[in-house]
Amino acid sequence: MIRGIRSNNFLFTPKLIEQAYDLIRDEIHETPILTSKSLNEIYGAELFFKCENFQKTGSFKIRGATYSVKSLRSSEKTKGVVTHSSGNHAQALAYAASQSGVTANIVMPENAPAVKSNAVQKYGGLITFCPPTLEDRENYTEKIVALKGSKLIHPYNQPNTIIGQATVAFESFKQLEQLPDILITPVGGGGLLSGSILSVQFFSPRTTIFAAEPAGANDAFRSLQSNELVPSTNPSTICDGLLTSLGEYTWPLIRDYTQEIVQVTDNEVIRSLKEVFQYLKIIIEPSCATVLAAIKKIENQTAGKRVLLILSGGNIEVEKVFNLKPKDHS
Amino acid sequence: MIRGIRSNNFLFTPKLIEQAYDLIRDEIHETPILTSKSLNEIYGAELFFKCENFQKTGSFKIRGATYSVKSLRSSEKTKGVVTHSSGNHAQALAYAASQSGVTANIVMPENAPAVKSNAVQKYGGLITFCPPTLEDRENYTEKIVALKGSKLIHPYNQPNTIIGQATVAFESFKQLEQLPDILITPVGGGGLLSGSILSVQFFSPRTTIFAAEPAGANDAFRSLQSNELVPSTNPSTICDGLLTSLGEYTWPLIRDYTQEIVQVTDNEVIRSLKEVFQYLKIIIEPSCATVLAAIKKIENQTAGKRVLLILSGGNIEVEKVFNLKPKDHS
Repeated sequence: MIRGIRSNNFLFTPKLIEQAYDLIRDEIHETPILTSKSLNEIYGAELFFKCENFQKTGSFKIRGATYSVKSLRSSEKTKGVVTHSSGNHAQALAYAASQSGVTANIVMPENAPAVKSNAVQKYGGLITFCPPTLEDRENYTEKIVALKGSKLIHPYNQPNTIIGQATVAFESFKQLEQLPDILITPVGGGGLLSGSILSVQFFSPRTTIFAAEPAGANDAFRSLQSNELVPSTNPSTICDGLLTSLGEYTWPLIRDYTQEIVQVTDNEVIRSLKEVFQYLKIIIEPSCATVLAAIKKIENQTAGKRVLLILSGGNIEVEKVFNLKPKDHS
Repeated sequence: MIRGIRSNNFLFTPKLIEQAYDLIRDEIHETPILTSKSLNEIYGAELFFKCENFQKTGSFKIRGATYSVKSLRSSEKTKGVVTHSSGNHAQALAYAASQSGVTANIVMPENAPAVKSNAVQKYGGLITFCPPTLEDRENYTEKIVALKGSKLIHPYNQPNTIIGQATVAFESFKQLEQLPDILITPVGGGGLLSGSILSVQFFSPRTTIFAAEPAGANDAFRSLQSNELVPSTNPSTICDGLLTSLGEYTWPLIRDYTQEIVQVTDNEVIRSLKEVFQYLKIIIEPSCATVLAAIKKIENQTAGKRVLLILSGGNIEVEKVFNLKPKDHS
């Protein structure tokens, strides 16, 4: 077993992931791994779908958030936590903090959909609305840190977040009868991918890692090509969980341990999303359909292999995505 | 334990259901029972969702079909089976028959959607297309019985079909820590409802049974009101699995043991369907969202109770229902 991997001067170790899992496992769901004969036939590989869409708050983000909150010293807990996000991390942090009796300050753009702010409020988060620019979000967040002394819990670019997300793959390896030949995760900011990289290097080093990225938000692809961190600019994709840039903790891990960043178009994502609905009978969000779409692009490497696909979440706007009309004129 | 219940001169016994379950359990999935804190809060009851949408071929129909096929004598097996259906029973019978090396003749209206005929063919069924009238479907079916000697496997109105469907509730009772106070199933032809009634009377007699029926196809409701079997005429509802009439085996059971047939409108079904998508993160077909919609109508009876809801299937036409456009112009 590799003793440790360093990124941005933080030393990640197998023990940190094992301890994180012990700390959070009673707070989260052990999500199932599903299989489908039909999808195996369509894709010519043995597919294992790790269903974090069934996770608490609807995504894997609860793992990093819970580990981050539970790792706080008690003096830090009294001052609360803060993050800026309108997505799955916001809901996850609100829920994780409330479970530990910690105040979660969530900075959200004032034009965020009501369904998202309602979810954060339902989980007990304290919302601060700000103008919808990245600069304002960061300023408001810094102000809360300065005023309240709250600790920033970053959605992906923080060691504890990455260690928490590493438990998805760690848990999957425990559940599978045989370790996978290939693991595929989506990549946005790179928290899930970096965590998966660590778990693979430490606990399943013969597994090859691919990441799936929307072609309309392909900063990780371009970073790997140019061998330097390229920020995400004007991303355009239906995969609303994958719009962010890599960070200084996630980028070195991704650079050194990812076999390939596979780009997929929105139409390819939609096709895969429909296949998941049809054959697995589960709801996932577009961002995680990227992993299934990616297989078509690397068929020569996945053919006949055992492939672990991490389905990262299931938070879609049902009203937008499903179009059902009554027939009985009710 | 009640020793038996007679319907249309057939004596249903607990032993028949136990033996059926032993015979089919290796051929089917033991489907999970899911729960959701959010839905419990919304509905004010403790809800248990039996997920037959995850069943082989996407619905509970595989249970009755498998039991019917496996109960054939070997002389009958060589002559094949036949049914007329364009829905879940057709797929189930095609699959169940192929698993036993039996030919399944499926009579389908020539205007059935390609997605349905493709599914039957995929499972190895032999399709005979006929003009789209009930008379033609019955004539064509009789012709196959006469020519090939194939045995008709009815979608609901046959003792073995009903006994097979009874294993849904039977299996659920084994899975639950405590037996439910209330059980709700959809009602179309009444196979699932009749089977559930038998399992409740034999194995959980303190459970009260409700059935959910589309207001636009309310023949069971009208039958119970008038105390005689009223056939379904010009049904209009998005619940395409619940258009059929009760039969002489299902009607007496439903008449004698159902607390109430609860009518729900398509709009109520759609609202419940979206709640299942949002909170359980699973795909179900409109027909089975009726059971959740029904709770709102009998709140005074379900409040605070343990309610087992049978989600009968997950076969929706994804292309029709799903409305998501690419953003990346791919």
